[in-house]
Amino acid sequence: MDTALVSEKVEQANRAVADADVDAWLTFCRETNEIHEPCLPYVLGFDVVWPTAVVIGPEDSTVILGRHDAPNAERLGVHEVRPYDESIREPLQATLSRMDAETVAVNFDRDDNVADGLTHGLYLRLRDLLPGRELVSAGDIVGRVRGIKSRSEHERITQAAETTLGLLTELASAWTPSMTEAEAVDWLHERMREAGYGSAWSWDYCPTVHAGGDADLGHTLPGDRTVPDGELLHVDFGVVRDGYAADIQRLWVRGEVDPGLRRAFDDVRAAIDAGHAALEPGAVGHEVDAAARSALTGRGRDAYDHAFGHQVGRTAHDGGVLLGPEWDRYGDAVRGAVRPGEVYTMELGLDTEWGYVGQEEMVRITDEGTEFVVEPQTALWQLSR
Amino acid sequence: MDTALVSEKVEQANRAVADADVDAWLTFCRETNEIHEPCLPYVLGFDVVWPTAVVIGPEDSTVILGRHDAPNAERLGVHEVRPYDESIREPLQATLSRMDAETVAVNFDRDDNVADGLTHGLYLRLRDLLPGRELVSAGDIVGRVRGIKSRSEHERITQAAETTLGLLTELASAWTPSMTEAEAVDWLHERMREAGYGSAWSWDYCPTVHAGGDADLGHTLPGDRTVPDGELLHVDFGVVRDGYAADIQRLWVRGEVDPGLRRAFDDVRAAIDAGHAALEPGAVGHEVDAAARSALTGRGRDAYDHAFGHQVGRTAHDGGVLLGPEWDRYGDAVRGAVRPGEVYTMELGLDTEWGYVGQEEMVRITDEGTEFVVEPQTALWQLSR
Repeated sequence: MDTALVSEKVEQANRAVADADVDAWLTFCRETNEIHEPCLPYVLGFDVVWPTAVVIGPEDSTVILGRHDAPNAERLGVHEVRPYDESIREPLQATLSRMDAETVAVNFDRDDNVADGLTHGLYLRLRDLLPGRELVSAGDIVGRVRGIKSRSEHERITQAAETTLGLLTELASAWTPSMTEAEAVDWLHERMREAGYGSAWSWDYCPTVHAGGDADLGHTLPGDRTVPDGELLHVDFGVVRDGYAADIQRLWVRGEVDPGLRRAFDDVRAAIDAGHAALEPGAVGHEVDAAARSALTGRGRDAYDHAFGHQVGRTAHDGGVLLGPEWDRYGDAVRGAVRPGEVYTMELGLDTEWGYVGQEEMVRITDEGTEFVVEPQTALWQLSR
Repeated sequence: MDTALVSEKVEQANRAVADADVDAWLTFCRETNEIHEPCLPYVLGFDVVWPTAVVIGPEDSTVILGRHDAPNAERLGVHEVRPYDESIREPLQATLSRMDAETVAVNFDRDDNVADGLTHGLYLRLRDLLPGRELVSAGDIVGRVRGIKSRSEHERITQAAETTLGLLTELASAWTPSMTEAEAVDWLHERMREAGYGSAWSWDYCPTVHAGGDADLGHTLPGDRTVPDGELLHVDFGVVRDGYAADIQRLWVRGEVDPGLRRAFDDVRAAIDAGHAALEPGAVGHEVDAAARSALTGRGRDAYDHAFGHQVGRTAHDGGVLLGPEWDRYGDAVRGAVRPGEVYTMELGLDTEWGYVGQEEMVRITDEGTEFVVEPQTALWQLSR
């Protein structure tokens, strides 16, 4: 049980509630082994079976949960624990009344999936359980608590990124001209299994490996393609270690580098640099995307059809402010401002005849600007064998 | 990709929509790697990143998803595929209009978590995307599609149950008087890792192992207790194989059996038998629970504080009709009727001075009644070493 982390994040949550225009923050969930509540690892740290409420006020916190789940909460030792047998109604109402909680933030958000763990059925149930109280979106509180990483979270993210980069370097050393995309994936999966690392996104698609100019792009499974001479091996990859993820892309070329490929690499690099230059505390998500996007199109390239950057934490897509264009599918997530303590990955690429020229680099936001989580790739690397 | 299963379940869904008082069934989700949509494995079979809609009518089906996720849908070959770039709005509206879908069932349900995958934020978004259409609960459709297992699902559940029972038997053979609860858990986890089996509920709590009368009950972690002479080893366990789960409890006694322990075992057995006798097509959930509950209290025992039975399928708690008492926390789930093709596990137990006398048996509902998925435990077994 990750008691230290939960304790750290609940204190952060107390402060976030004190700063927000609400009386309490309520995480309400059930059977979290089936439907994951993304806030639960921060406020409780273990799965529950019966309907469970974690109520965090500006100064204290209470968890109301089924009697069978209660021993874990006692062991955690972070919250006041109120076990129930038949119904959560009375202890939940009593807890909120004791806290004078009229306005209660709950986990729904149109645009930010990690702040949207309250299912609609549970929302309707909560509406019935709490007549007379106002339920508002906890999106801002979640963005703050999840987005702003504690020191131990930063350390774990750095560790995941260094591990990811180490495995990518080892893969390049193990590469041979006959290695297929599927074999490269298997090679990394085998290392991950041995070491007990998780994948930063769906196992089957993490890593994503593209060999040469004929590779299928998108969220696709690897094929039996090998890297033709003069073309690229591209890998998008991230491990999860101690609950935290990385998300990095790296590129290698086999043999001679065509001047056209070098130009593509430089153009991608320049666009990443332009976005990176715009990324600082207070920067608005879509403005950072626009800086990278216009640098790329200004070099005569087609724009990428996704967001320039997203936060990284417990998962590769960690929610909160997104560095993306103002497209309908991104909603308000791209209109928020970047905060010190957050961790982003910046990514874009070009589909070329030599392969997918994709780059992706992780940075943390400091009080002054940014710093790279691990050394970025600033030149095309050679596959040798 | 589990194409055969998705194809089978989508056909079942077509029929369920045709029988229901709705025009279409819509599963709407995003970033399903972070928040699992419990219906997605049935209607699509792979995780998605961008907002995605699977629309199933009485005769056909369409999936509308981000361009990057589209190749997987094309490979699946079950639905008409409509990829989008910036917004799901237009293709979703067009699809529903083409199907004349005015009343649309979506995945929310107050009581059944596996039918409640639509988050409240996504519900609000859907409300905006589909003005003028009525959104109703898909609980009944989900209960039918998920609850009534196809032949290949029954085969997989049987396989998971046989594997679970096999591992439990091996554990009993490997048992020694010095084996602690934690070592028994590690022993099973090691076998699961070797074979690549998943756990039917949270890994840390599956298996749950109780050694003797001093064991902590509830959803607790194993300790360093061993089984004292004359007391019980109790294990609650289930593996996941090929995506399907089991959930079984088994009991062994070390040394002499005290007459009081034998009576407890017989009373538990009798209560399970009474519930089992009431379990048949058309039986209402809380009536089956009441049959077991009154058999137990009729023998002068305290009633158990949970439901008598739950469905088993992709997970140990598979949603739908629940064989439980009419308590607030179970809502309407205990008021539904049992259907042929469903699979239930029946469980209850007594906390005694010799240990936890818990039994749990899996049965499938046939047209005529029930049949055990694997051989039940009808006598106390001996630990020998």
